[in-house]
Amino acid sequence: MNSVIRETIDRLIDRVNAISDVGPGFTRPSYSRLESQAHAVVAEEAGALGLEVTRDAGLNLFARLPGRDRSAPAIYVGSHLDTVSMGGAYDGQAGVSGAVALVTAFVKSGEQPPVDIVVTVTRAEESVWFPVSYAGSRAALGRLTAQELQAKRSDTGRTLYDHIEEEGGRPEEILAGPGLAPARFIELHIEQGAVLDNAKEPFGIVSGVRGGLRYREARIDGIWAHSGGPARCERADAVFALADLIVGMDRCWEETLARSQDLTVTFGRVDAASSEHAFAKVPGRVDFCVDLRSDAVSVLDELDSLFRAQIDKIEKARGVRFDLGAQSRSQPTKLSAALGDQIARGASRLGYSPRRMLSGGGHDAAAFAQAGWDSVMMFLRNWNGSHNPDEGMDPADLAAAVEVVHAAIRDDGKGGDY
Amino acid sequence: MNSVIRETIDRLIDRVNAISDVGPGFTRPSYSRLESQAHAVVAEEAGALGLEVTRDAGLNLFARLPGRDRSAPAIYVGSHLDTVSMGGAYDGQAGVSGAVALVTAFVKSGEQPPVDIVVTVTRAEESVWFPVSYAGSRAALGRLTAQELQAKRSDTGRTLYDHIEEEGGRPEEILAGPGLAPARFIELHIEQGAVLDNAKEPFGIVSGVRGGLRYREARIDGIWAHSGGPARCERADAVFALADLIVGMDRCWEETLARSQDLTVTFGRVDAASSEHAFAKVPGRVDFCVDLRSDAVSVLDELDSLFRAQIDKIEKARGVRFDLGAQSRSQPTKLSAALGDQIARGASRLGYSPRRMLSGGGHDAAAFAQAGWDSVMMFLRNWNGSHNPDEGMDPADLAAAVEVVHAAIRDDGKGGDY
Repeated sequence: MNSVIRETIDRLIDRVNAISDVGPGFTRPSYSRLESQAHAVVAEEAGALGLEVTRDAGLNLFARLPGRDRSAPAIYVGSHLDTVSMGGAYDGQAGVSGAVALVTAFVKSGEQPPVDIVVTVTRAEESVWFPVSYAGSRAALGRLTAQELQAKRSDTGRTLYDHIEEEGGRPEEILAGPGLAPARFIELHIEQGAVLDNAKEPFGIVSGVRGGLRYREARIDGIWAHSGGPARCERADAVFALADLIVGMDRCWEETLARSQDLTVTFGRVDAASSEHAFAKVPGRVDFCVDLRSDAVSVLDELDSLFRAQIDKIEKARGVRFDLGAQSRSQPTKLSAALGDQIARGASRLGYSPRRMLSGGGHDAAAFAQAGWDSVMMFLRNWNGSHNPDEGMDPADLAAAVEVVHAAIRDDGKGGDY
Repeated sequence: MNSVIRETIDRLIDRVNAISDVGPGFTRPSYSRLESQAHAVVAEEAGALGLEVTRDAGLNLFARLPGRDRSAPAIYVGSHLDTVSMGGAYDGQAGVSGAVALVTAFVKSGEQPPVDIVVTVTRAEESVWFPVSYAGSRAALGRLTAQELQAKRSDTGRTLYDHIEEEGGRPEEILAGPGLAPARFIELHIEQGAVLDNAKEPFGIVSGVRGGLRYREARIDGIWAHSGGPARCERADAVFALADLIVGMDRCWEETLARSQDLTVTFGRVDAASSEHAFAKVPGRVDFCVDLRSDAVSVLDELDSLFRAQIDKIEKARGVRFDLGAQSRSQPTKLSAALGDQIARGASRLGYSPRRMLSGGGHDAAAFAQAGWDSVMMFLRNWNGSHNPDEGMDPADLAAAVEVVHAAIRDDGKGGDY
């Protein structure tokens, strides 16, 4: 069985990654033509296995393998195929190819699964493109709002509504609902950090997904000046102001971790109006974004207060003005302990004892959980972080994880809650 | 006389600034077609006054009004017409139009000056384009090196040699020398800071020019990662590393000023690989430049040591790598006290008592001083800093300064050292 799984994984990852904008790495924007082409690869592979392939109004793709008990809640398995700009070979791709490998293993062995398995390929999971969390899966779940459909893609400036329609979707139907009835969802995904790699473990079971608080388009306005001109006290230097804020937030981060609370702090997209700047100018403007993540809403709220308090102080001290723009949030989410236990039993039968761990990044599994599904994830060892061209993954780890899910599904209804 | 001076100033500034790349502000790169066109305006105006117009091998422009004593050292008066990208209406332009207004005042009144006055329009004063200090005036002075002629322009990537040749200059002849014999140079220029404006004084006499130490193309390499992924201690965040450095250098700056030493510290061109970045990424790279200025070489040397010591510490603490690129320097320069005194006497005769002050920015006057000329500057009140589209200047202040220089030159040879 393992060789069928491995071959399927390798082939799918290669075929999907052949579809990308220019490198380094892989780029398939959300609701782009490239994302649609990647979905078509899965549709073709699933069709060849004899599966029934459908697309919903939000263009999420479903390929259903019928089970013995068609009245039991189906098990959806999958992930997404969009990427960040210049992302890696595995973020999303791994889970989709794992899902195809899973149904291939059932089909090729001639064994019908106990319940329907639905290969699930969501859209628009990477919210760098549209400032909307889990746009594709939430469309499938009937949870996307009319306002969110007006969100603009960061590269084109055009709305989510327009991009869905352009790729052949039906935005009005998304809003009409009702979306999928609650069932079960399993997502395989590379770990964003190096916990598994440091521990030399091939995979883990994810018990919850961190929430996030973002200011995606913040800026500081100071006053442009000649670098040899104004005295120190006369300057309104946007870059010094940002450095104060970053170092201050670094201290808050350290203190939060010291209280054993969960937090990450990231500043990015820093750009001191570089086309307008020169070494002989005091920078009068800097753009940036901030991303705070935690498993607790209370920590995010507290950090947001500290962030704003620092900004007040810096504005007074430096004579600059901050404009934070809109705040966006994703909620911390608990995943299904019961479905996690079922996977743990499958793992145990194959000789594994995967750890339970938190996810730092947001994932579609969180959207399914928030919609009342039993939803769980498995993380795969990755030694190079994610959202970069060098993402690492051993296909053997993914194949082993697929075998674990295969074992867990075969036993469906026999043990524990299922 | 004042009305002739004012009209000339207003007309010249308007005509020159009509020549610019797209705004905001004014852009005429060094040794660009736009800079050549601006020079042609002055050539035409000087020609109309009957002055002899010449250009040297480096395309600096000279328009000579003969004086009564043709054997005495001539007084060159002028500035430059190139600008930084999106600069202001006065940096350089003011001094050139003031020089044209000065000779116009002599010509229109029918009074021959005591010595030759040479309207001087230098090239390539703004070293943001080529990483070479005072390229044009140093070409005129026979002090430009073959190596410097290979410096590349920041926007085109082509060499100073090529750009000079393309505009009609003769780079080999610049190298052959010998350049202008020492004479006298007076430059009128807007102040880069707000000392005069805060003191409500129209102009000042500059006694020295600060030197600079720059890293124009520095970068930090960290490791790209998912913002929710690696733990705090596992990250190599380029932006946090830069913030540490900026805040550390801010402390050094404060301490240096507390010791009554002269210093400015500016970080700019900060760009965290913004096209590759997204809010969900830990930034793996940031580019920046640093500009340190002081009236003392010893202070620049000390700050450079502190800068490097901090970088060593940050590299160890953050797991990032700095690449500072090449260092460039300009030397602190004393201007002529004797010529400053002569201008002060001219001012006094007209009822002014201008302060003596330091220049934060570099100027052609420093290049002339370094070549053994008696060289001095007058600063004009400016309430919006320089190197930005909002540079401020009251043409009445410039006209008054031109009258002061006119008075100082009329008395040439009569008082003090001259």
